[in-house]
Formats: sequence, structure tokens, C-alpha cells
Amino acid sequence: MKNTKFLVIAFLFCGATWSQEVKKTRAEIDAKVSELLSKMTLEEKVGQMTQITVTVFEDAKRPGYFDAAKLKQGIQEYHIGSILNVPNPGAPTLQRWQETMTAITNEANKSRLKIPILYGIDAIHGASYTAGATLFPQQIGLAATFNTDLVQRGAEISAYETRASSIPWVFSPDLDFPRNPAWSRMWESFGEDAYLSSKMAVALVNGFERNNVGSKYSVASCMKHYIGYGSTTTGKDRTPSIIPERILRQYDLTIYEAAIKAGAKSVMVSSGEINGTPVHSSKHLITDILKNELGFEGVVVTDWKDIIYLNTRHKVVETKRDAVRIAVMAGIDMSMVPEEFTFYTDLVDLVKKGEVPMSRIDDAVSRILRMKFELNLFQNTVANLKEYPKFGSAEHIEEAYKTAAESITLLKNNNAVLPLNKNEKILVTGATANSMKNLNGGWSYNWQGENADTYAAEKLTILEAFQAKLGKENVLYTAGADIEKEDDAEIQKAVELAKSASKIVLCLGEKNYTETPGDISNIFMSKSQIKLALALAKVNKPIILVLNEGRPRLISDFEDKMSAVVQCYLPGNEGGRALVDILYGEVNPSGRLPYNYPKYPNSLEKYNRKYTESLADEEQNNDAKYEKSYSPQFEFGSGLSYTTFTYSNLKIDKTEINNTEEVNVSVEVTNTGKRAGKEAVLLYLSDNFASITPEVKALKRFEKISLEPNETKTVKFTLNQKDLQFVNEDLKWISEKGTFTIQISNLKKDFLLK
Amino acid sequence: MKNTKFLVIAFLFCGATWSQEVKKTRAEIDAKVSELLSKMTLEEKVGQMTQITVTVFEDAKRPGYFDAAKLKQGIQEYHIGSILNVPNPGAPTLQRWQETMTAITNEANKSRLKIPILYGIDAIHGASYTAGATLFPQQIGLAATFNTDLVQRGAEISAYETRASSIPWVFSPDLDFPRNPAWSRMWESFGEDAYLSSKMAVALVNGFERNNVGSKYSVASCMKHYIGYGSTTTGKDRTPSIIPERILRQYDLTIYEAAIKAGAKSVMVSSGEINGTPVHSSKHLITDILKNELGFEGVVVTDWKDIIYLNTRHKVVETKRDAVRIAVMAGIDMSMVPEEFTFYTDLVDLVKKGEVPMSRIDDAVSRILRMKFELNLFQNTVANLKEYPKFGSAEHIEEAYKTAAESITLLKNNNAVLPLNKNEKILVTGATANSMKNLNGGWSYNWQGENADTYAAEKLTILEAFQAKLGKENVLYTAGADIEKEDDAEIQKAVELAKSASKIVLCLGEKNYTETPGDISNIFMSKSQIKLALALAKVNKPIILVLNEGRPRLISDFEDKMSAVVQCYLPGNEGGRALVDILYGEVNPSGRLPYNYPKYPNSLEKYNRKYTESLADEEQNNDAKYEKSYSPQFEFGSGLSYTTFTYSNLKIDKTEINNTEEVNVSVEVTNTGKRAGKEAVLLYLSDNFASITPEVKALKRFEKISLEPNETKTVKFTLNQKDLQFVNEDLKWISEKGTFTIQISNLKKDFLLK
Repeated sequence: MKNTKFLVIAFLFCGATWSQEVKKTRAEIDAKVSELLSKMTLEEKVGQMTQITVTVFEDAKRPGYFDAAKLKQGIQEYHIGSILNVPNPGAPTLQRWQETMTAITNEANKSRLKIPILYGIDAIHGASYTAGATLFPQQIGLAATFNTDLVQRGAEISAYETRASSIPWVFSPDLDFPRNPAWSRMWESFGEDAYLSSKMAVALVNGFERNNVGSKYSVASCMKHYIGYGSTTTGKDRTPSIIPERILRQYDLTIYEAAIKAGAKSVMVSSGEINGTPVHSSKHLITDILKNELGFEGVVVTDWKDIIYLNTRHKVVETKRDAVRIAVMAGIDMSMVPEEFTFYTDLVDLVKKGEVPMSRIDDAVSRILRMKFELNLFQNTVANLKEYPKFGSAEHIEEAYKTAAESITLLKNNNAVLPLNKNEKILVTGATANSMKNLNGGWSYNWQGENADTYAAEKLTILEAFQAKLGKENVLYTAGADIEKEDDAEIQKAVELAKSASKIVLCLGEKNYTETPGDISNIFMSKSQIKLALALAKVNKPIILVLNEGRPRLISDFEDKMSAVVQCYLPGNEGGRALVDILYGEVNPSGRLPYNYPKYPNSLEKYNRKYTESLADEEQNNDAKYEKSYSPQFEFGSGLSYTTFTYSNLKIDKTEINNTEEVNVSVEVTNTGKRAGKEAVLLYLSDNFASITPEVKALKRFEKISLEPNETKTVKFTLNQKDLQFVNEDLKWISEKGTFTIQISNLKKDFLLK
Repeated sequence: MKNTKFLVIAFLFCGATWSQEVKKTRAEIDAKVSELLSKMTLEEKVGQMTQITVTVFEDAKRPGYFDAAKLKQGIQEYHIGSILNVPNPGAPTLQRWQETMTAITNEANKSRLKIPILYGIDAIHGASYTAGATLFPQQIGLAATFNTDLVQRGAEISAYETRASSIPWVFSPDLDFPRNPAWSRMWESFGEDAYLSSKMAVALVNGFERNNVGSKYSVASCMKHYIGYGSTTTGKDRTPSIIPERILRQYDLTIYEAAIKAGAKSVMVSSGEINGTPVHSSKHLITDILKNELGFEGVVVTDWKDIIYLNTRHKVVETKRDAVRIAVMAGIDMSMVPEEFTFYTDLVDLVKKGEVPMSRIDDAVSRILRMKFELNLFQNTVANLKEYPKFGSAEHIEEAYKTAAESITLLKNNNAVLPLNKNEKILVTGATANSMKNLNGGWSYNWQGENADTYAAEKLTILEAFQAKLGKENVLYTAGADIEKEDDAEIQKAVELAKSASKIVLCLGEKNYTETPGDISNIFMSKSQIKLALALAKVNKPIILVLNEGRPRLISDFEDKMSAVVQCYLPGNEGGRALVDILYGEVNPSGRLPYNYPKYPNSLEKYNRKYTESLADEEQNNDAKYEKSYSPQFEFGSGLSYTTFTYSNLKIDKTEINNTEEVNVSVEVTNTGKRAGKEAVLLYLSDNFASITPEVKALKRFEKISLEPNETKTVKFTLNQKDLQFVNEDLKWISEKGTFTIQISNLKKDFLLK
């Protein structure tokens, strides 16, 4: 019965069109916000700050459908301003999303002030909670493309398909700055470099918001997780981080600065603590730095249940009511409560008793209302599906394919074992060879992504992409290993098949996961997979190791026995095809590793280490022989091509500058091989001496170019004064006189800051 | 020729007696310092601040003997104030030390002001650079005793034997607070708890200095390495540390505060950087906090070459001269230069040019002169050997034996497999079973300790202790494994022998090492040793795993196959005997683990973790099943006995206190087993809610008691207000109202701070 009613309502909305694409001015919007705010009761205001998960309103007997009474209670009684997450059992169709949003909108329209509900979603690699959407590589793969144009186009498609799902707000991009590669959300970040992360963050914000979030093809972005979330000491999710403010400003904060400047509309707060202070309780981080210093004017939303956790997990307050007080006073605008209404009742009470001033509530609600106006939600909350003909289209899929293809990173290719020849007999094996779950990872159709093989059944796994290219009968296959469980019989099967193959494509990696379920205690590749690799190595056929993983699981136990290593990351639904096209040379690989791939579990140094972490020979102590500890398996920026690129003529326009001048840099890059190829040109800078110990080198610029065989292009970069600066002990950005060294490929040039 | 001359001079000094044991007053000493300082030239002052390694003055053709011209140049031309380290080839006899100090003293007496040379040495577990000295367990073992009286007595013996070697200054205790158990100097620390470290630090300072460093049986201590040295992110020696000041004050600094209050005469600065600032260049840490805030009046000495390294490794300054300037201006009093004289020439020049004020020089030199007066060096620099009859005596050795016996920690004893029975046939095997190097570790006879088997040839290895007890013919033995190199033939030999044994004592561990040569990239036990353990496990005989290691190398690959696990740490020269006496039940073990022994390489959580690191069941997320990440192999404080202790009647005298009151706690401990035994009673406190996320628990008191079978003792502790405090974001020690929980064994009591 209820279902039928929803369908009827849905049809009424199908014909609606977006009232306008014209962006309102800030003054227009501020006036509307003030007017509306002035009419609101305390309860209506606090309701706006309340975000509830959609499943709270579901009919217990009909998962995925509303219990009308519950929805009514949430909207009319608690005045809630926002709903998030995906109805059961995950990944509704466009039609089901439309029905869902229609029901919500209808209920909101029955409220006194008819304020629309703001719906938010973890659509982090495409409209990943909508059936049939185009799924891109996860963020770590986007970073590996080193191609911001491509990444921005992908975000535009994600925005399009998300708005097609009637959802105006995505919890993306992830601006986390992981300091421990074992972290379970490493793959949701842009890797270990702050500059690369900033550039990619801006590309995503621009792609999502398209400089007008009110458009029917835009969504509001949400920077997450402010701040320091990705830097837990042990790499475990939601455990303590230790980050002095100087270092927070030098790295983590720069990424937020860039995204805020690009216009990011909202931010989600880190569930972690920094130096003993949970971020959700830090007025210094949220109000003083984010809102006041950086001038962020958008909405600050908590992460899942995190106000309650201030009391029950972090134990910084004795009651949930106190938790609400300190979080709101720290600067939280919206609470992802999300499973009940204590935030609402506690906050109403706190304001009535004078423990939270109305000014703080008005600030929060103004930000939320402004975002709703900017998103045009007062005009449009439900998509007219006719306006989204490209949802899941071949055009969109092609972009996802191209992005996957540019992300895949060739790390090793001994004796040009790649590309493969179609006449060779190939054994495809390994735990990740035949599954869409592994290609997509978490946040795919649902939280942990465990149902991707059902939702993306028509998409090609790695094995299926081989079979599509060569014919099913021409590909040898057995799983060879489970990701966790040891299985000697499967290994034996793989070894037997390997004997009749000329080459082995060994697909290893990780299960789908995110957040705490992805925590690991040992960063080595799982034992069951190492065992398979070592067994296959004894067959003495060339092995192409394909890595399909969210973080660098150690392969040092067998890497020397692999002829080639290809890192896929989590390439999404088109990743199997893209990979196989690369393996056969139909696409020339051009990805670069956005992190150091460690060799040993207790040597997790980043590429932009300090000099003391990789002493030059002359600085080693002569009294004892010892290994240098800095020795990654593959260094940040690694990535091979089937062609060769030669760098020459590195030039700078000045060898001395004062403290206002720029340095113009140029370098010539020539394709000296026989295939067309793309090359990400990376410029590193070293400050040779500085009062804060300098990094050995730091990425300052990059550009991806295409070159035909024998073609030469000149790549130009300009370094400015900010590039020469670092944060000193007084938390100021400064530069110091002295020499700097520019490095592009193996070429170097010095200049002096006078 | 030169040698003969030294011997003659030495004999002249042999009859000298110490002029007095009476401690001079501070006023007397200050007057002498002022008077002497007023007579000194700039060059003489800067010379006092210069410390050179003794080998610089050696005759290239006669290692261990001086080149008189070089020594003369150092003392007369550069006016050096201090010499350190051990002559080649290491570990001189008492007589050779006497000759060495005599030569130095004679040269110093020829100088204008006859200021004695201050000799410093890395005597860190006994007079460890003197042949025939009594060698105690390394510091990590001292911590495991949880017996401060025993530790203090050991330090008194170390002081006695060091002064017998004519050396008045030891670079001990180590107050490092390791945050990564893989650190190569973990074993030089007191482990992971700041309170335990503080108490042990005080015991060592009191034992070394005996409240009168001028006594002929005392030495000046040197706290090291101020500060944050032991907390490098990756666990590699001398690499960057990240420690916000709040956390530095909450933990690391408290250990220094306690040792300074106990009177520690000097401090050595950390070679590392904290948050990008090398400690040697930090005026904030050395002058503002250490000298001004903590009121430290002693000598601040650099570590090895560390001023030069400010330029060449840390790269915070462009020249060595600048390095001298910033280090001296940061508050360094003495530079362990130590291989040439640039510090002297640069600093003289800096003062002449006004870049370093004379007031800073006078402060430094006053501190150095004061220490020399306090040490009575103007009267006595060379020991009269007749006054040290107990050097290396049975009495001293017995104390070292008792300390080793109380340190050894029984971590597992399934089915009471221990103690052994003398009638059982035992196989003793493993790479550390028959070597004194492994029992002693680094800083033993020389830097890396590789010659301990020569110097301590008459001491008993673990194997020799078995043979001494059972008769050589009754002990089966083969090495079974090398520490690093895999050797299948040896494993096979061990397996064959195991078949005819009734039990196996498997001795695994680490090579001797310290500092950078001890860096590791993988905290697992070495593969060669794991292989031996797994092979022996298949023989199906009970295995007693004896760990002989400086840090917890992971044993999770085979620990479940071991019947018993005994941690020896680095127990020193008497450790083999002590261990075997414990294995046979002649000594009842009473050590407790002073750190968490991790199970996995990427789960290195400390015991006093935050709640978010080990969520209670009700705080786990229901949507996914996942393992709790906090799961050490053995937790801090673990340690079994051959008897059983029962705790009862935990009482507190108040259940509510105000902010001035103390809480008196008592608990009854009963020996409910059949053997006499010692028990370290540990009191933990939990602050249930705090604005800085509270630790799950923290050690606040401990006391070691002895109990006969059926005996009960009441142990009393008093908690004061300081115990309830933590450092807040404003760097102040504060307490907050609320409930606290006291935990002793499995008993708990709450009280309320009103």
C-alpha cells in the first residue's frame, strides 16, 4: 500500500523541470537566509542542524521503503534538516531514488516553513550508491593519473549522475593526508603528497560544483575529514593522531586551503583526536582556524555518531548532553546524529538554559540554509529523469575507462615482458582475478562494497576482460588462492596450469573494505597469496604481478621473482578492461605511484623524508657497517611506459632572485621510443638548508603531456615565493635566504634566494 | 719508550689518597668557580667547553697509548676541558685506566691554571668499559625488576667500579621514552612507562651520585638523551620525532624532572629532531625549559659530533661555524666535538666577533667548573687502586646476579612445564644459547659489544650454566641457527637431538648492537630463527622459549607452539646463571614486562592506550565484524611466578576528595602457592573522563614484596593530587572533577574528585 502511494507521488514529480540555471548572487541568497531565519523557532533551527540516516524512517517490514509515520515524525516533530545514506538493501535505481526523494520532499512541503531536506551521500567514485551508475577509480587511482583535467571531467560526470539520483550533496573529496600507508582508508585519499592532493582536491571540487552548485548537473562537495584523520599513529582507523600544529599547517591544512579557495561548500569533521583533543570538540581547529582564519563559510557536519562518541569513545565528557554542548560550541553546524533524536532534544534544552547562545545556532543554521538556497533546493529536490539521458551512458563509461587506464601504474617490466602478445598462452590466476568487489573496494553500492559482483554483474572482471579479448577458450584460469584462507589444492591447480602457459598474470590484492573493518595489523600481503606467488615462481615462467589493492601490501618476500609489476589500485567498474588493454599494449601506461611503496613493515618512510632518514654515504658512521634504512620497494612518482622519454635542456630564467620574484623553469621532453605515450612531468624542489630541517625534496609542480614517437615538447613551470616557504616554529610561513635545487627527472638546477 | 714513561708516572700516583669525603657546600664551590673563572682567558674558557675522544691522542703505532705531543697539543694549545670514550682496543684493565688518567692529569697539571680534565664514559651497565668489571643487566632489565632498591644498589657498585677506573662521569641513566619498540636503543631505556622510568631514573642517579659526587665511590650521572630521542616515528635511530609539547610535558619531561630533583649533575642532548627542530639547536627546549623552567644547574653536553651534524645531517645551517653559534646560543655547555678542534676555533672567533656573548660562555664554563669541583677533581683524578678492593668481587657479582634474577620475566608456563627437573634430558639450542655477546648487548667492553666473548670468557653463557649445573655430558647442544643466516643442516641437527631430549630450551634473540647499526626494518624475529622454532615444534616435545633480546622481536608465527616463554632481555654477565637457576626453580621468577610485547608489526600500541584504541564491545560498530586491533602478545606488567599470589581487600580511605586531599590505598596480597616468591604490586589509575582523552589506565605506584607460602602482607600506597593531573592544551598540569578508578590486579575501587 505504502509503496503504491510513493509511486503515485513520484509520477507527479517526473515532469518537473529545474526552474533556472542562473546562479544567484551571494547578496540575494543572504537576504533569503536572513528572512527565513527570522521566522524560525528555536526548535525549527535545531532541527535544521539535525541529520538522520534514511534507514531510521524505513518500514521494518519493507526494507527500502518509508514508514510514513516515522518520516512524518522526523520532519514535523523534530524538524530535521538533513538525511543521509542509502536505503536498504543498497544502491537503488534512479527511479527508486526519485521515489525516495519525492516522499521526503512531499513531507517537507507539509511543514510550516517548507524548508527542503538536504540529502547527503557517500558517492565517492561516481554515483556509487546508485544502481547502474558509472563508477570511476577510487581517489588513490585518480591521484596516480597526475592528470587534473581528466579527474575534473570525471567529477562532473559523478555530479551529473548523483543529481540524476536526486541527491545534491556528496561526501567527497577526501582530503586526508595519510602518514601511515597501512591505514584502511589510504585509498580514499590522494596519497602521501600534500601538493598533489591539493591539486586533485581542487579538480574534484571544480568538477562537482562547476562554479554553480545550483545547476541541475552540480552537487555540493564535502571536504573530509577535517583534519588529521588520516594520520593515526598505528594506522588503525579512528585512533589517535599526533600532529603538532606546525606540521598540520605545513601539510594537511594546505589541502583544505586549496579546496576552500575552489569553493567547497561543506566539510566533514574527523572522527579522530589530535594530540589528545577529539577534533569534534576543538574550537581551535573548527572555529579559530577553519572558520575564522581560513574564512570557510560553508557547513561543518560531523561524521557518523561522532558527537555521541565524544562521550562514549573519547570520554572527554561525562554525558551525551555535554557532548552536544562542546561540539556545537566548537563550531559544528550539523550533527550526523544519525540514529535517533537526542542531539535535537539536548540542543534545544541547552539553548533554553543558556548553555549554548542563540548566536551560535543562528550561525550554524544560516550556513545550512545558505547551502540549501545555493543548491536551489527550494525550487528543485527531485530530478526529472528525462534531463539525465547520459546517466550510465557509453560516453560516461568511456571517461571512467580512460581514467582507469591513466591511473594504472607499471612499476616493473623486466626484459620488456610486457606488453603481452595475443598468441601467448596466458594463465590468469589469483584471488582478485575474477571479482568486481576487488576492483571497486568499499563505498560501492553499499558501505563495505561486498555486493559489487551482483550490482556490476555485466561489468568485466580482469579474467572476463582477458576472455573478451582472447576468447574464453584461450585463457587458462584458476583462482589459485583465497585472499585470506590458505588452500594448497588451489595452489597446486595453478601450478599445474602454469606449466602449460607461456606467461602468468598473477592478480593479488585485498578484499573490499573501508574504515575499521579494513584495519590490519600486518601490512604484508596475506600469507595465502604470498604462498601462491612463491609456488608459481618455482614453475619458472615469467610472472606479471597485478596488484589490486587499496594500500601497498608488502611484496618484498617475492617481488624479485616477478618479471613485471602493475599497480591497479581500485580502478572501478572499467578497471578490468583498462588493465587488460594495457597488458596487451593497446593502451600505453602512464600512471605514477602517489606514495612510497614500502619494502618492510617497520620502514614506512615517505618520499619527502628528512636528510637524517637517508644519510648520504659520507654521513654514515665509519665505525660500523649498516644498511640505509630508507629503501622503498618503489618510490613515490614511479611509473614506467612502453616507450621511453628523455629529458633535456632544463633551464631557469634566473639563478638569483629576491623575495618577490618568480622563477620560470622549462625542460624539453622527447619521446625516444617507438610508441605514442603520456608522461607526467614532475618538478621537485629542495631547500638545501633551512631552520626547520628541510625535506630531501618536495613535489612542487606537475603536468601530464602526450608525445608521439620522436616528438619533443617543452614543458614550462613557474615557481613563486610561496613554493620556497615553510612553516616555522612560530607557525608562520617564511622563506630563508640560500640555495634551492630544482629537479626534473635526473636533471638539476640551483638558484639562490637573496 | 713512551709506555715506560707513562708507567713511571702512574706509579707516582698509586699512593695518593682522596683528600676528603666531606661534601663542600654550594657556596664554597660557587666561590671557587667565580675565582677561577675570573682568571681565565677566552681561549681557556672555550677549551673547557671542548670534549675530545681519547683516541684522537693515541699513538698511531701503539693503539691504546698516548702520543704525548698530541695530548699536549689538546690540553695546552686547545685547553680542552674533557675527554671521553675508551682507548683502543677497548676495555682497559684498572691499571691501564690508571695509567691513562695519570698521563692526562700530569699534562693538565702543566697547564697555566691546572684545571683537571673531566673524563666521561659510556658505562651504562656497570663499569662496562673496564676489563673485569661487574656487568649488570641493561636498563630494560633493571626496569623489569620493579625493584628500585636493588637497582640503586647496582648503581652504587657501578659507581664504585667506575671510580676505581679513575673515571668520575658516566653517560647514564638513559631517560629515553621509546614510542616505537623497534628502536635500536629500546633496551637502554626503562621501557614504555613514564612513571616506572622516573622511579628507576631516580634510583640510578641516587646510586651513582650517592648524594655526594665528590666521594671516591661516586660518579656524576648524565641524563640522556634530552629530549624525545627515543620516539622516532619509524623507530630508526637519529631520525625525526614528532612530539607536540603537550605530550612531551605529559610523559618525557616528567622523567627528567624526577632525575633533576634527585640531583643529576649533567645531561646529554638528543641527536634527533622534534617536529623539525634538532634538539641541539633548540633554545626553547634547552634554555627555556631545561635550564630556566626546571632549574637544571648542571652541564649540558652534546652527543657525538652533533653540532657538526646540525650542518651536515640536519641541514639547518649552511656552515659548521653557524652550527656552533646556534648550539651554544641554544644553551649547550660542552661540545662532544669529538674528533678535531673546529668547535674551539669557531667558538673563540664567534665570541671575538660578538656573535656569542661572553655571558653565555661564562654560564657554560661555570657549570663545567662547578661539576669539576663537586667531583673533587682538583684533588683527585686518579684512583688509588688499594681503595677499591671490591672491584669485580664476589660481593658485587652476587648483586649483579640478583638483579638479573629479578629481571628475568616468565611470560608463559603452560602445564607448569617449568621449573625443569634435573633428571630430564634437555636440549639447549638456538643462536643465543652459547654467547656472552648476546647476554650483554651493546656498550659492553666497546661500542657494539662484539668482543664480550673474549673479555667475559670466564663468565657462563646459557649453555655453560646448564653444563655447570648438570655436568657437560648431561646437556645436549647444537647451535641450531645463526641469528641471520639460514642453515638447514643446523636445523636438522637440532631436530635430531630434540628427538632424544625430553624438553627443549630454545634460545632466540638478537645480535649485539646499539644506535644506527641496530636499526631494523622488520620487527619480526629473524627468519633463520623462526625456521628453527617451527622445525623443533614439529618434534612434539615441550619447548621453553628463552628470549635474549633488546627489543620485542615478534614471535607470533610460532608462539602458540611454545610451552613456556622466558624473557631475559640483556641480563649481563651473570644472566646465564640466573636464567638457568630460574629454569630449575632455584630462583622463583619475579620480573614484569616493562613494555607491551606486540603480536603484529603494524600494531605497536602501548598499554596506556586511549579508549579509541581498544573499543569495548558495546562501542564496536554492529554493521561489520572486525577484530579489535589492540591485542599485544604480552601486555605491559606481565610476569608469572612459580607460586600464586591472591589479592584481596582493596581499600581506599575516602570515596570523595577535594582538590587538596590524598587517597590512601591498601591491598592484601597472599602467597597462596607452595614456594616463597616475590611480587611486584602494581597500582593503576584511570581518569574516567577528561578533556584531554584519558588513557585506559596508567601506572601510578608499585612496590615489590617477598612472601613465604601462606604469608599475607598489606601493601599501602598514597595517591596525591599530582597523580590525578594531566597536561591540558595550555600546557598546564590540571585535574578535573569526576570519578577515578584504582585498579590493583583484578580489584577495582572508584573515588570522586569533587
